[in-house]
Amino acid sequence: MANLSQPEATNLAAGQNPPPEQQLQDHLDDHAFSFSPNITLKKLPHLSDYLQDLQPAGPNPLDHNPFFHPSDGFYVNKSDIVLRQVACRLSPSETIASPSHHLAYIRAGPRKQIFFDHCATRAAIVTCGGLCPGMNTVIRELVVGLWDLYGVRQIYGIKAGYRGFYSIHPIELNPKMVHNWHRRGGTVLETSRGGFDLTKIVDAIENHGFNQVYIIGGDGTMRGAVKIFEEVRRRKLKVGVTGIPKTVDNDIGIIDRSFGFQTAVEMAEQAIHAAHVEAESAVNGIGLVKLMGRSTGHIALHATLSSRDVDCCLIPETEFYLEGKGGLLEFLEQRLKERGHAVVVVAEGAGQDLIPRTTAQKEERDESGNMVFLDVGAWLKTELKKWWDREHPHELFTVKYIDPTYMIRAVPANATDNLYCTLVAHSAIHGLMAGYTGFVTGPVNANHAYIPLADVAQAKNEVNIKDHKWEWVRSITNQPDFVKSKQNSV
Amino acid sequence: MANLSQPEATNLAAGQNPPPEQQLQDHLDDHAFSFSPNITLKKLPHLSDYLQDLQPAGPNPLDHNPFFHPSDGFYVNKSDIVLRQVACRLSPSETIASPSHHLAYIRAGPRKQIFFDHCATRAAIVTCGGLCPGMNTVIRELVVGLWDLYGVRQIYGIKAGYRGFYSIHPIELNPKMVHNWHRRGGTVLETSRGGFDLTKIVDAIENHGFNQVYIIGGDGTMRGAVKIFEEVRRRKLKVGVTGIPKTVDNDIGIIDRSFGFQTAVEMAEQAIHAAHVEAESAVNGIGLVKLMGRSTGHIALHATLSSRDVDCCLIPETEFYLEGKGGLLEFLEQRLKERGHAVVVVAEGAGQDLIPRTTAQKEERDESGNMVFLDVGAWLKTELKKWWDREHPHELFTVKYIDPTYMIRAVPANATDNLYCTLVAHSAIHGLMAGYTGFVTGPVNANHAYIPLADVAQAKNEVNIKDHKWEWVRSITNQPDFVKSKQNSV
Amino acid sequence: MANLSQPEATNLAAGQNPPPEQQLQDHLDDHAFSFSPNITLKKLPHLSDYLQDLQPAGPNPLDHNPFFHPSDGFYVNKSDIVLRQVACRLSPSETIASPSHHLAYIRAGPRKQIFFDHCATRAAIVTCGGLCPGMNTVIRELVVGLWDLYGVRQIYGIKAGYRGFYSIHPIELNPKMVHNWHRRGGTVLETSRGGFDLTKIVDAIENHGFNQVYIIGGDGTMRGAVKIFEEVRRRKLKVGVTGIPKTVDNDIGIIDRSFGFQTAVEMAEQAIHAAHVEAESAVNGIGLVKLMGRSTGHIALHATLSSRDVDCCLIPETEFYLEGKGGLLEFLEQRLKERGHAVVVVAEGAGQDLIPRTTAQKEERDESGNMVFLDVGAWLKTELKKWWDREHPHELFTVKYIDPTYMIRAVPANATDNLYCTLVAHSAIHGLMAGYTGFVTGPVNANHAYIPLADVAQAKNEVNIKDHKWEWVRSITNQPDFVKSKQNSV
Amino acid sequence: MANLSQPEATNLAAGQNPPPEQQLQDHLDDHAFSFSPNITLKKLPHLSDYLQDLQPAGPNPLDHNPFFHPSDGFYVNKSDIVLRQVACRLSPSETIASPSHHLAYIRAGPRKQIFFDHCATRAAIVTCGGLCPGMNTVIRELVVGLWDLYGVRQIYGIKAGYRGFYSIHPIELNPKMVHNWHRRGGTVLETSRGGFDLTKIVDAIENHGFNQVYIIGGDGTMRGAVKIFEEVRRRKLKVGVTGIPKTVDNDIGIIDRSFGFQTAVEMAEQAIHAAHVEAESAVNGIGLVKLMGRSTGHIALHATLSSRDVDCCLIPETEFYLEGKGGLLEFLEQRLKERGHAVVVVAEGAGQDLIPRTTAQKEERDESGNMVFLDVGAWLKTELKKWWDREHPHELFTVKYIDPTYMIRAVPANATDNLYCTLVAHSAIHGLMAGYTGFVTGPVNANHAYIPLADVAQAKNEVNIKDHKWEWVRSITNQPDFVKSKQNSV
Repeated sequence: MANLSQPEATNLAAGQNPPPEQQLQDHLDDHAFSFSPNITLKKLPHLSDYLQDLQPAGPNPLDHNPFFHPSDGFYVNKSDIVLRQVACRLSPSETIASPSHHLAYIRAGPRKQIFFDHCATRAAIVTCGGLCPGMNTVIRELVVGLWDLYGVRQIYGIKAGYRGFYSIHPIELNPKMVHNWHRRGGTVLETSRGGFDLTKIVDAIENHGFNQVYIIGGDGTMRGAVKIFEEVRRRKLKVGVTGIPKTVDNDIGIIDRSFGFQTAVEMAEQAIHAAHVEAESAVNGIGLVKLMGRSTGHIALHATLSSRDVDCCLIPETEFYLEGKGGLLEFLEQRLKERGHAVVVVAEGAGQDLIPRTTAQKEERDESGNMVFLDVGAWLKTELKKWWDREHPHELFTVKYIDPTYMIRAVPANATDNLYCTLVAHSAIHGLMAGYTGFVTGPVNANHAYIPLADVAQAKNEVNIKDHKWEWVRSITNQPDFVKSKQNSV
Repeated sequence: MANLSQPEATNLAAGQNPPPEQQLQDHLDDHAFSFSPNITLKKLPHLSDYLQDLQPAGPNPLDHNPFFHPSDGFYVNKSDIVLRQVACRLSPSETIASPSHHLAYIRAGPRKQIFFDHCATRAAIVTCGGLCPGMNTVIRELVVGLWDLYGVRQIYGIKAGYRGFYSIHPIELNPKMVHNWHRRGGTVLETSRGGFDLTKIVDAIENHGFNQVYIIGGDGTMRGAVKIFEEVRRRKLKVGVTGIPKTVDNDIGIIDRSFGFQTAVEMAEQAIHAAHVEAESAVNGIGLVKLMGRSTGHIALHATLSSRDVDCCLIPETEFYLEGKGGLLEFLEQRLKERGHAVVVVAEGAGQDLIPRTTAQKEERDESGNMVFLDVGAWLKTELKKWWDREHPHELFTVKYIDPTYMIRAVPANATDNLYCTLVAHSAIHGLMAGYTGFVTGPVNANHAYIPLADVAQAKNEVNIKDHKWEWVRSITNQPDFVKSKQNSV
Repeated sequence: MANLSQPEATNLAAGQNPPPEQQLQDHLDDHAFSFSPNITLKKLPHLSDYLQDLQPAGPNPLDHNPFFHPSDGFYVNKSDIVLRQVACRLSPSETIASPSHHLAYIRAGPRKQIFFDHCATRAAIVTCGGLCPGMNTVIRELVVGLWDLYGVRQIYGIKAGYRGFYSIHPIELNPKMVHNWHRRGGTVLETSRGGFDLTKIVDAIENHGFNQVYIIGGDGTMRGAVKIFEEVRRRKLKVGVTGIPKTVDNDIGIIDRSFGFQTAVEMAEQAIHAAHVEAESAVNGIGLVKLMGRSTGHIALHATLSSRDVDCCLIPETEFYLEGKGGLLEFLEQRLKERGHAVVVVAEGAGQDLIPRTTAQKEERDESGNMVFLDVGAWLKTELKKWWDREHPHELFTVKYIDPTYMIRAVPANATDNLYCTLVAHSAIHGLMAGYTGFVTGPVNANHAYIPLADVAQAKNEVNIKDHKWEWVRSITNQPDFVKSKQNSV
Repeated sequence: MANLSQPEATNLAAGQNPPPEQQLQDHLDDHAFSFSPNITLKKLPHLSDYLQDLQPAGPNPLDHNPFFHPSDGFYVNKSDIVLRQVACRLSPSETIASPSHHLAYIRAGPRKQIFFDHCATRAAIVTCGGLCPGMNTVIRELVVGLWDLYGVRQIYGIKAGYRGFYSIHPIELNPKMVHNWHRRGGTVLETSRGGFDLTKIVDAIENHGFNQVYIIGGDGTMRGAVKIFEEVRRRKLKVGVTGIPKTVDNDIGIIDRSFGFQTAVEMAEQAIHAAHVEAESAVNGIGLVKLMGRSTGHIALHATLSSRDVDCCLIPETEFYLEGKGGLLEFLEQRLKERGHAVVVVAEGAGQDLIPRTTAQKEERDESGNMVFLDVGAWLKTELKKWWDREHPHELFTVKYIDPTYMIRAVPANATDNLYCTLVAHSAIHGLMAGYTGFVTGPVNANHAYIPLADVAQAKNEVNIKDHKWEWVRSITNQPDFVKSKQNSV
């Protein structure tokens, strides 16, 4: 998926003095303009950081794989890097080689030397949080990859999320067993939220003798994985820990995207299409679709761009309001007059400030201490009906509300996402085998890299409503820019 | 889609002296390791290059769009660039700022100042070559984008490819007309091969008064577009020419991919799945699937990685052979023994050297002077049957051969590709409006850039069989490395 | 779709004296056993019933269609009939030729003689009520059929349901316009509920000069169509009126099924599959799916039989209860213990008696004077959560509730339903052209027949919970037979 | 699926003297017209026919199933029948109760008394011939039905078709193993053609101790099943034999249809759609699709009716010719002139007489002694190209040929077909359990019946080109009626 902007890059330039236009202009008009940005490479934790006498287990067994003939350049080494900022705004300071914050990450891939013997490797795989298309594919590819590429035979699935480490017996996995899992939605290992008990989990890792831990989950899960990695390091265990981000909402930063997102957009488009059909088959019909995305509106945004049938897309990153000039109701009134119908897509995290909360709801906090999410779809449906009854009591009006969440989450990954799952699973295996730990693997500007787990656990990936992608949505929907209009109307 | 390697980067490093390992190692082990590669920005042709007195038509009309409120950073300017090499291998020489061949391109997007007045703009859109999912979406988005973003009202479709410029009356297009085209496969404008007559085409452009020409097609079409651009420049016409690469095979270089590829892989996976079902439901069943890809095996490769049911993937970039040690037949014999069935995927350009040619076929040349392609699928099917009859005359054997080409090409684009079509169409419009010409728009490391048309027309995008992606295929299929085995067996 | 039983037949036998077993047995053991049931043919209204001097307009124009060469047997005549009871239980009385209530209907198809001249024919098409896959196909096929088969050129679409007759100008339809409608969900003509004003509608029919009226809608719409037919007859207008039953729920009797049902079951299966994935990926996970069906549970039943992943299917035709022995909660407790998850499918009309109603809800009546429907899905979700919190406060539990209604209704018809739409549309045209009126066309035991509109408007098609199909559901789900258990537990 | 005509009924009437019109007319105009056809019930083979001392094993275990409470009418008995002729043409002779050939079959369903004890039952399931969507579902439902409904625990799969009885060890099946098979295409049991050795097969049945044999296959397979049944009877074995017709072509008579047909039509429609897109995107483009159907054109016919994009449909039941007045080429010439493109669908058995055969091909015979089938699609593609080159050497022309056969056969069954599979599998089990043997189960006029295996093995189900369904195709395509035109042109 194309990144249409690179917020960091823009900010980088924006945060510095504006370039003396003329000076830069001269350079840019020159065909052979050259410049040399200053780039910093992110270091990755390695088992040898805290295990002083760690010895390599030998050369990569891919060398001896009957059908493998690693050619030059097959093995990735320490000097292979991936740049984070690929789109950037040049500033004169850069052209004169001033220090700056360009980052680079270690490139993902198999290493010539590995630190785990296949006989001694004992891997655990766990899935946490909500469902996302591709979870089973990742599990499958971890099992098959460990087995076929590195000859590992002790591979275990932890059932039902973090709590499964200490409360359920692990199940043994092998390639035959997982053979068809990439065609199944959900996670055969089962998943759950919460249940994170650091001591119990690391104790269980020790007790079961696991020395590679693959943790598949969202941002909360990644924060737990950081703690597990740190505790493992504190205990000086030879246990590699890697996180595989599972974020159907695409709300995890640094990496371009994770698995399941493309599939989710494809399914979301179907729901929008259904809403559009319902809306246009009615008199003054409104199709309302609530899509996943608590903190970010990526699915809503992408499904809107893909579908082209959306009249208004509401996401958490931008405010909106109903009444008055420039408000949603005025806009919908206009659309119904012009076209006879309208489709509204709302991300589940949008409009949380607008929905009236009961005292109880104001007090209520979720596990992380945040205010609980209210159902913006149901609220909006009610508000739309109230509005029409008030303004046009004798005219036909229909709101068809679709919440396709579980039908989106539960499908198997499409081809694009399935491929991604293979890549990310193999990268994770190669990384742990090479002795790296406390890392996440994912594409950075379309090239797979290893990124410190702690960085990913903190990074957010919000829709930048000042960038082109969001403007594109607005240009397609022609929906009001609520923020600005609001200011005008005040 | 993830680029797993960056051939240029590797070559770059490979082409230089090997790094003094120790020196680099010291740097790499250092957390805050920094380096400053030397980057060269590719200049883009602009109408003002040859039209000395060209004046801007004024500010971008998006400024006054009722629903648009361009924020800071909305408009892209000359100093916004996209790096081509995002994955690279550091060499000590780089760390000491030696010159090198890192490239950068102008970033795509709307410009503050435009060179076409909406009343005077007269756009022509043409589709050439074979079908590809998303062609209709690109046309639709060009029409809707020109109309809604820039207020252009004179938009024409050229029918039936290049020859349509001079032989068929253009048809007028408007948003209402193209409204649902993104749900239709093929191209409503019709397409054809050949018919390129430079003088007639540029005469027709002049006669019809077109000043923006959008050319959608493959590498041959892009080479034609270069000639049109050059002739337009020679005649000093104020006509912007842009190419939108349509390459279901993904055989066009520099850009990450073009539209339709993801959809094609998804459909190809279905064909592979059918072949797998046929194979595993038979005794000694072989499923054989021929996929698109004359010069490159990307679809075959990606569909193999996505599907996981393939036993052997044959692409044009690597040789194979049938008989003898390490050959395909020995491998299939083994697979049938182990699993009872096998699936072979072959790109249409693979094995062309192996197929016996009649004298006539040896003489025959296609329009470009190349030897004609023979049907590798049909040939392989026959060879497999002959082999089995010879070796195992009394045992059951079945080859089910599937050629899904037209069923793949004709489907509408999926959500991912549809989104891409919007982005690429809008980028093309923004570029021409800004006075750029002779360019192609497409993602470079997942960021949309403008690239000189001539560069794209020359660039190939072959599967690098020395890189990880191909090794991944081999690791999944465990198929023989024909090249090496061949050498061994000789 | 297979009818597994024929309630009327069973009732017929049941309503009579039990057969003297021995006597019948003797017959049945005989190879060449013969019998002669007494069958009554239903008469169909015809324009000539009340237009005494009606003259045929001439022979069917299909005779002169350039590509048509009606062979013997092509035209259906009065002596072609379709039997209603194809599965029956023999009773000795029948074998002895006693009178009985076997029915037959006139067979559908083109007639040799027609009563409408193509120049004078002016057809109106209207869609009423909720969406159903295939509505656009029926409209398309009516337009194309009238145009191509009978040369009719005045074809109008009435917008937005019954009220459109008198409040919106009809739109002219032609084959080019409707060409692709079979690929679109919903109804391009738009639809609405209510708005039935008999006088205004028949006045509008007269004023617009319509003489063929095609009314597509559900049972309420069919009752309206009967009134229109009767008023038209009262006014002695030469206007043919036909109803095309649109019943995604399959709740209309006599006919085997109508269009959209197969498609709906296919989509419903997807929702069930998603619920199953969600349930089995959770610890003690319950997937709950609410499917369409206010008075009948056909979709729930068929989707359950097709899917095989359902643990309990609740339909309006059978009661259920939550608490106590043999209740739903006890059953789910058991299933969760055995399998770790469960899937419950509930038709929207099920359990209406169980849901507590507020005083207001008790008073509220819908347009037809019935108690309003409450949301059984949301209620059940809440009850399940309360139950688990009460019984297992410290154990994980998840209910994922899916309401796929609008995603089911809005899709285009699948191949099976599309074919049905062609047949039913052509049959309707042939019938009106032949001068029949006040009829419905539809398959009776898989053979298309014309049935008096009044009969169809009254007929219900409930799931017979005493017949095999429902027992098959029970045998697949092994769910409790709530009725019986309830009696036991009292 | 709707049967639009009933050939037997028509023939019945046609074979008799034409009715004295006036006499019948009087009856038909009478509202309460009654008549009494003479119906003959087909007897079914039963184990007790040749096992004199066969004793029932007891009451149906469904009586004691914890969740089953068979109500009145649940069990089917000997007096429950299904009529074969539901659509018929009345003739005066019938009205006067003359003898006639109306047939009836025993109704399918569970019987009160069964002849197999669940401990002693040992079932074998075999799949033969080509693939068909739903084969795995039938196997699954047989296994689950035997296990859950009747408590059978010894269920075996015969691998690779008939030859598997005597050459491969049977595999034991259980519900857990087959759980997800209804989601998989093909047959997990594998299949093959030929290998029928009566003695070896029945010996194997005896040696393995099988007493219920379920044979899934096409018409050839059914003829083999008849022989097995007869040999079993000759040896006086207590072995029930039932055939489950698998006919994706729908070429088996008496039954309405079998499983897989609806799915095949749905997939075929996709291929036609792709051909249509290819054709309409080219200049003078022809899309050519070859569909399954050696002796019958049902898939071609239904896909044509469903798709609506077909210009000409060629089936085995009707001749066609290329050259001259009224020929295919003239027709296509006209269509290309009018519409610019055309789509031709050809069933694989069509035009076999037109294709020139080499001497070798004339001699060659298939296993059944028939002339081998030649590839009508490839031949037609070549002929079309030759024709255009000859007639319009300087004009563009494209033929895109699609053979989707294996992509159609290999998909899993859709919801409609999956449901059918359940019904037919359960019916087969109930029938064998009740002691019936030598029968086939399938829907007759939409009601499931038991039919003597020998009758089904002989029955053909050709498209009746004199009936309405074929005329409907012609009315949709407006294609020439080759037969008649040919006669004219001679």
